[in-house]
Amino acid sequence: MTGGGNYFEDFRAGQSLNHAPARTVSVGDAALYTALYGGRFAAQSSDEFARSLGLPSAPIDDLLVFHLVFGKTVPEVSLNAIANLGYAECRFLKPVFAGDTLGARSEVLGTRENSNRESGIVYVRSTGFNQRNEPVLSYARWVMVRKRAASAEAPPAQTPKLAAAVEAHDLVTDGELQLRAFDRHGTGSAAFFNDYSVGQRLDHGDAMTVEDAEHMMATRLYHNTARVHFNAHSEKQGRFGRRIVYGGHVISIARALSFNGLGNAWFVRGINAGRHVAPCFAGDTVYAWSEVLDKVDARGRDDLGYLRVRTVATKDRACWDFPYKSGSDAAYDPSVILDLDYWVLMPKA
Amino acid sequence: MTGGGNYFEDFRAGQSLNHAPARTVSVGDAALYTALYGGRFAAQSSDEFARSLGLPSAPIDDLLVFHLVFGKTVPEVSLNAIANLGYAECRFLKPVFAGDTLGARSEVLGTRENSNRESGIVYVRSTGFNQRNEPVLSYARWVMVRKRAASAEAPPAQTPKLAAAVEAHDLVTDGELQLRAFDRHGTGSAAFFNDYSVGQRLDHGDAMTVEDAEHMMATRLYHNTARVHFNAHSEKQGRFGRRIVYGGHVISIARALSFNGLGNAWFVRGINAGRHVAPCFAGDTVYAWSEVLDKVDARGRDDLGYLRVRTVATKDRACWDFPYKSGSDAAYDPSVILDLDYWVLMPKA
Amino acid sequence: MTGGGNYFEDFRAGQSLNHAPARTVSVGDAALYTALYGGRFAAQSSDEFARSLGLPSAPIDDLLVFHLVFGKTVPEVSLNAIANLGYAECRFLKPVFAGDTLGARSEVLGTRENSNRESGIVYVRSTGFNQRNEPVLSYARWVMVRKRAASAEAPPAQTPKLAAAVEAHDLVTDGELQLRAFDRHGTGSAAFFNDYSVGQRLDHGDAMTVEDAEHMMATRLYHNTARVHFNAHSEKQGRFGRRIVYGGHVISIARALSFNGLGNAWFVRGINAGRHVAPCFAGDTVYAWSEVLDKVDARGRDDLGYLRVRTVATKDRACWDFPYKSGSDAAYDPSVILDLDYWVLMPKA
Repeated sequence: MTGGGNYFEDFRAGQSLNHAPARTVSVGDAALYTALYGGRFAAQSSDEFARSLGLPSAPIDDLLVFHLVFGKTVPEVSLNAIANLGYAECRFLKPVFAGDTLGARSEVLGTRENSNRESGIVYVRSTGFNQRNEPVLSYARWVMVRKRAASAEAPPAQTPKLAAAVEAHDLVTDGELQLRAFDRHGTGSAAFFNDYSVGQRLDHGDAMTVEDAEHMMATRLYHNTARVHFNAHSEKQGRFGRRIVYGGHVISIARALSFNGLGNAWFVRGINAGRHVAPCFAGDTVYAWSEVLDKVDARGRDDLGYLRVRTVATKDRACWDFPYKSGSDAAYDPSVILDLDYWVLMPKA
Repeated sequence: MTGGGNYFEDFRAGQSLNHAPARTVSVGDAALYTALYGGRFAAQSSDEFARSLGLPSAPIDDLLVFHLVFGKTVPEVSLNAIANLGYAECRFLKPVFAGDTLGARSEVLGTRENSNRESGIVYVRSTGFNQRNEPVLSYARWVMVRKRAASAEAPPAQTPKLAAAVEAHDLVTDGELQLRAFDRHGTGSAAFFNDYSVGQRLDHGDAMTVEDAEHMMATRLYHNTARVHFNAHSEKQGRFGRRIVYGGHVISIARALSFNGLGNAWFVRGINAGRHVAPCFAGDTVYAWSEVLDKVDARGRDDLGYLRVRTVATKDRACWDFPYKSGSDAAYDPSVILDLDYWVLMPKA
Repeated sequence: MTGGGNYFEDFRAGQSLNHAPARTVSVGDAALYTALYGGRFAAQSSDEFARSLGLPSAPIDDLLVFHLVFGKTVPEVSLNAIANLGYAECRFLKPVFAGDTLGARSEVLGTRENSNRESGIVYVRSTGFNQRNEPVLSYARWVMVRKRAASAEAPPAQTPKLAAAVEAHDLVTDGELQLRAFDRHGTGSAAFFNDYSVGQRLDHGDAMTVEDAEHMMATRLYHNTARVHFNAHSEKQGRFGRRIVYGGHVISIARALSFNGLGNAWFVRGINAGRHVAPCFAGDTVYAWSEVLDKVDARGRDDLGYLRVRTVATKDRACWDFPYKSGSDAAYDPSVILDLDYWVLMPKA
């Protein structure tokens, strides 16, 4: 078989992985992203509004950029992955606009074989860059990857040190972005930076039922070729008996739902940690709620700040009582499928 | 919960509702609209053909404009609606092109509490406008909206007078539109204004089965967040036990099917009345037929006229015998789901 | 009923069929095509990469052009078709870019009534052309078309001579295409012309499960109105009891899967023969494998050659052992649904 991807024993710390081909993003991709998730954030929705922020046009949604870069990395990083275990140190570095072309590179940060010798954990840092070779996004992730055979020699164990969270002062906001002149009534939300408090919880209210056609169209749009998302025939024999929804699809649903309560959080600036607590399947209905974890002024600017937010997505369970962890072992509520800790930019009113 | 929308007792006649955010329309939206409905009207399908009509490029389909404006109004008007009851006085005022940004405002025309005191009818006039603040679309609609509690004080009863139909001489056709120089063989239809007669009935022949992934993608594309369309989990406990298809999705299917017989009706100029006679669900197959209700010359122009058309959509029933109303009580045939009375522009050959 | 299409007895050899309306192709169509099939060929994926080949921007995928032209021909050629029997003499003549407008014309090459007198075979040559009236694609196909009644008089029998394959020296490659300066590491594939040998077989490994929402969105995007794809209600009484997937949808899935092994085959230059061996339905999982049938240098150029390839698609059966024909009667393996013989352009490294 051709295009079989790397197995655990093929990785080495320090290795550089080139991902190809590059991918030009268009207004067509943006329209599909809207059709798939229904995002209503003003800056991505309206060219006119984006211009009032100093941008040339509506930027491509940050998470669409994330998925496109992630998708690029799949053939070399995670085609033989058993599970996508986590994200860290993710920062969005430059806005991306329709017409930009995204490429990606990864560096292997470390590897650690599992005790059963059938698989191991691979840590990579992936960087997306535009046609001017400017980095637009950088993040670390770790995945559990199969070995060809338990007997194959494993790479030396080396676990990288990854930060528990991105420091607020390391978040990057484009200098061209100016949040002074926009129409406060044009965003669909009346809550700005000063209206939020640490510890505040928000039930996002709405929910979306996932369909196979939708998550597959999304995942193909991202050039993500991981097999578990597309092949119902072979997945019948797999762990879950059916296709698994790409975890990023759940992230984007939760983010779109978060408009109810976080409607002015137009830009994701960093992802501190992300965990796909349980798999999502077609037919599941995704709900979400968020908690404000931290609030930090942006250095040298008085027009915006950063909110650190935890967004939790559940399946088939409303979030009015904020289901999360409980019990003496602090186990996740069985409904929880996503636990995402990230930074959003929030204008001051 | 955040973003909970207005309840019946929140409305007052004369109230002005601002809808946000604005939404830039793109060729990506147009392509999705084609993929969802398969419309083949020449003016919307081909930039070259549109230029032969004096337009700068293919305009955005009128009903896509309608849905985008309608979707904008949902958070303030109909998030807590039980039913969308009717439309009136709808006129399309300016063509919309890819790159235009659509905003919307509504004025509350009246309110009337239901006798059970648990809900009431809200009448609004909504106007869509482009980035130059020019109105592109205006229409009245009335919806049945829940109260928070039966005990809540209702707004004063006030029922607005709405016209039974838009007068043909009030229809607006852009002065730049010139229907003299186009290729008569380039439209896919040989029937023009003079070929139609009042009372003529047309079976549109084709049919489309609705899928959940499709109507949800459409409805999200329109930024329409009404919950009944998206949440299979909570709708299991709802009136119908499942997600309800956005009524506008059925309108667009019927309109696309009407190409067979009305292939030169490129532009909808007004909607006189519209009734969603019965709900539509995924799995239903939509058929349609039309009757020519009236024919009027356009004032001051000899290149076009207006046809007043009734298009009826049914589910799971072919339309060769034009199912509509019957019996002594003139009840709708049980297959009928849509009864739409509207004006289309039709070139003279 | 309106728009009922031609029946077998309506065709005559020599007849010219005009197809309308024309269809402007956009980046929105290209994005949908990516979402539907997940194609990753570098030239279509990246404007930057396309420019390194001498093109002004990423061209529209050849098969999307094929489907758009094919779709245009359906109302006049195959609305009353029982089966699409074959393709021949297909050549891609000019690249198509976003913003181009595609029209189509067909010539009837011949007709032959079936012995049961209820249908007959119609042979047509269809040509797609752009807004400058330059042909971009030409192909012959033959379809079995119903008669209105067995008693209707059939057109004179006339079977055209069609070539068994397109000669390599008749393939057209745009002079502006220059394959000297591109980034060899930017394509996602390390195999170029010289790495392939005649008789080589490639298992493409991946697979995709087809959904009703997907194949209907694709088929509507192509303006293809053949009823068997859209109407679950009437197809319940049909030959297969359900909607049939447009054969071209399977071709595009197989072509997207072929990236694994043929990742530098960015351009399809001709189709020699194509057979939809068995129907495909929603829920089927499509796999594919290919065999290199021939290798030919391109005349007057040392930067590229042509590979003649047979791609076979199966349903619900992996292709590691290359299922095709077997037994004394060389019958197709029951899993095979597509047998496509075509030419791709392949750069020399």
